[in-house]
Amino acid sequence: MAKRLMFEKPLGMRDTLPFFYNQKSKAREQLKNSILSYGYSFMDTPFLEYHETVGKVSATKEQRLFKLLDQQGHTLVLRPDMTAPIARVAASQLKDAEYPLRLAYDGPVFRAQQAEGGKPAQFEQVGTELIGDHSSYGDAEVIALLVDSLKQTGLDDFVITIGHIGYVKAFFKDLLGEDEETKEQLLEYLYRKNYVGFREEVKQLSLNEEKRKALLSLLDLRGGEEVFTASKSLARNQVCMQAVNELKQLYKLLSNYGVEKYIRFDLNLISHMNYYTGILFEGYAPNLGALLCNGGRYDKLLPSFQLNASATGFAIHLERLVEALSDLSNGENRMGIIVDEETHAQGIRRASELRQQGYHVLLQHVDQIPDIKAFKNQLKEFEDFTTKGGEGNE
Amino acid sequence: MAKRLMFEKPLGMRDTLPFFYNQKSKAREQLKNSILSYGYSFMDTPFLEYHETVGKVSATKEQRLFKLLDQQGHTLVLRPDMTAPIARVAASQLKDAEYPLRLAYDGPVFRAQQAEGGKPAQFEQVGTELIGDHSSYGDAEVIALLVDSLKQTGLDDFVITIGHIGYVKAFFKDLLGEDEETKEQLLEYLYRKNYVGFREEVKQLSLNEEKRKALLSLLDLRGGEEVFTASKSLARNQVCMQAVNELKQLYKLLSNYGVEKYIRFDLNLISHMNYYTGILFEGYAPNLGALLCNGGRYDKLLPSFQLNASATGFAIHLERLVEALSDLSNGENRMGIIVDEETHAQGIRRASELRQQGYHVLLQHVDQIPDIKAFKNQLKEFEDFTTKGGEGNE
Repeated sequence: MAKRLMFEKPLGMRDTLPFFYNQKSKAREQLKNSILSYGYSFMDTPFLEYHETVGKVSATKEQRLFKLLDQQGHTLVLRPDMTAPIARVAASQLKDAEYPLRLAYDGPVFRAQQAEGGKPAQFEQVGTELIGDHSSYGDAEVIALLVDSLKQTGLDDFVITIGHIGYVKAFFKDLLGEDEETKEQLLEYLYRKNYVGFREEVKQLSLNEEKRKALLSLLDLRGGEEVFTASKSLARNQVCMQAVNELKQLYKLLSNYGVEKYIRFDLNLISHMNYYTGILFEGYAPNLGALLCNGGRYDKLLPSFQLNASATGFAIHLERLVEALSDLSNGENRMGIIVDEETHAQGIRRASELRQQGYHVLLQHVDQIPDIKAFKNQLKEFEDFTTKGGEGNE
Repeated sequence: MAKRLMFEKPLGMRDTLPFFYNQKSKAREQLKNSILSYGYSFMDTPFLEYHETVGKVSATKEQRLFKLLDQQGHTLVLRPDMTAPIARVAASQLKDAEYPLRLAYDGPVFRAQQAEGGKPAQFEQVGTELIGDHSSYGDAEVIALLVDSLKQTGLDDFVITIGHIGYVKAFFKDLLGEDEETKEQLLEYLYRKNYVGFREEVKQLSLNEEKRKALLSLLDLRGGEEVFTASKSLARNQVCMQAVNELKQLYKLLSNYGVEKYIRFDLNLISHMNYYTGILFEGYAPNLGALLCNGGRYDKLLPSFQLNASATGFAIHLERLVEALSDLSNGENRMGIIVDEETHAQGIRRASELRQQGYHVLLQHVDQIPDIKAFKNQLKEFEDFTTKGGEGNE
């Protein structure tokens, strides 16, 4: 029998104490205001879904799903992302809404951790879904909104890297034909950003020198708009060409939004979400060792709910965004009023006055304070209304 | 094998579509601002807790807990309330904070439903915990804050009914001695507000006429401050007397806050939370067939986490509050700008201008709109920047 648990929390579960709670609230509010300003409507879905519906189509590995059984014998999952549940709602309750449909969400998602590693098993995502706009205009809006939203929180030092899954797949198909195993292996290296592994693998393939060189050149397709020229000359078929043209068009539209300075391209970018089908992107902040946000276009998820529409969206990892924000003020602005039996009513009147002016005012009977000095120290200001005290004893 | 699921949700799980989402956001914001104005600090705890820690001490029946197993063989629960997790944090990470401690929370809690009945298995609570203030001043603050918070949302027609679990228990003890079974049975009738059942049960007890009459008189102890006189004359011991004195003192302090008009007393009030130990209360709105909010003082929960402190707090059922609010405006205030390839940049400039003025502006390329008329109809206003259109074609 394990030792008795008292204060412990399950693996990857964290408490959010007031200081971090306030920082999160502030950043969340700024993101939501920015998303609302683009005409998106926020909605929410339940925390539990059937494994058979949302669980299966989400891109989360089985062992990372929190599962439970209901009394009818169905397997339930704690939602591992918001995109699949929103697709479910878009395809059912919102199927008659006007298209294109602009939806947004904010809430925790869950991915079980296998081992102690400090990684959270619950984290909050703020995100958007633009459903039914199949154009680069839609892709551009989503990325511009992502940039604007991040800027609203005060973050300025970040990069959004854009890729195109269509380019990589068509490139591999041309060079490797139907060798699915090798293609999967190479995609896996790119997904893990293990470029050394990628090079080693390519060297061992029985390919002619030209093809081997082409595969290795793929790794160089990263940077600003100059990447388009190299990508075109490396393009081996019409699908690759079309992907580059889409990226060029996207860049032009992003310039209309004036967000080019935050944009990079990376034709090797592979997202873990295997439902992305076109443009995809990831956002990083330099002082953060992990993905800040990501998104892209997916055409296959909505059809799995019998809705024939394409969609694009982003998700921001809220806790990581707060970690990336450097300007975290303490924010303690509470005032205190200390009263006794005689001055209780008087203190209430004064507190009410101050609260109407927007102050956060704590009213406290003196007898219940174990350590007055420490109590006062936690407040920005205080007024002593006790009859033994000063200011209130008029 | 059951039929294939597609759009279904688990029992008691609901989607929150944009209209209701916005109403909830607005009410939540108003409640939170009011709670912040009293100097409370918001915090959050994870959605999953160990059954052995938080699950056991919460007052939720076993069959209403959502349970799952982690890979270490521990049973986890989806948090059934927020009071127990906050007690865990207060007794561990916050044990050196300045007392009295004012904490607040806002988030979903989970209680499994046994059958289809339209009842939610996930609902949102906004609440407070005042820890370490053992006085009537603390009770009064919590109730006054509850009243102020509800009023902030625009609700005015509601009643907070206050009882005292000490009175009932001491009353029963005096009349029924150690007959735990009968006492439990009578408490259960009161908890279910089944006064007919209570009367029937009392009639069948082998008690003398005076005691029988006293038990039945308990049911009359409901109303305004006039209840204090009746309660005193019915009081059978010092514990009862002390409970009435506490309620009188509380009423006086609530008058200092000016919230008497929302207050009623009910000496029969039994809350389902068996950890309440003193003052307890429930709030109802007349047009709502269910409990709107509740709370009270609990002295035994914190000691179960080795913290020797008393606490008092309230929880508001947010979805029910929104149902009780009658003034639900549609709130559609989005503007639309329709563009084409030539006017994309121009439309972005105009949208940006309007967004800076606080408008929610949807920018849309005309080619992606399947039904222009319906699309325009969903918006408050729109500007047509297409070169084939009107206003934008200057």
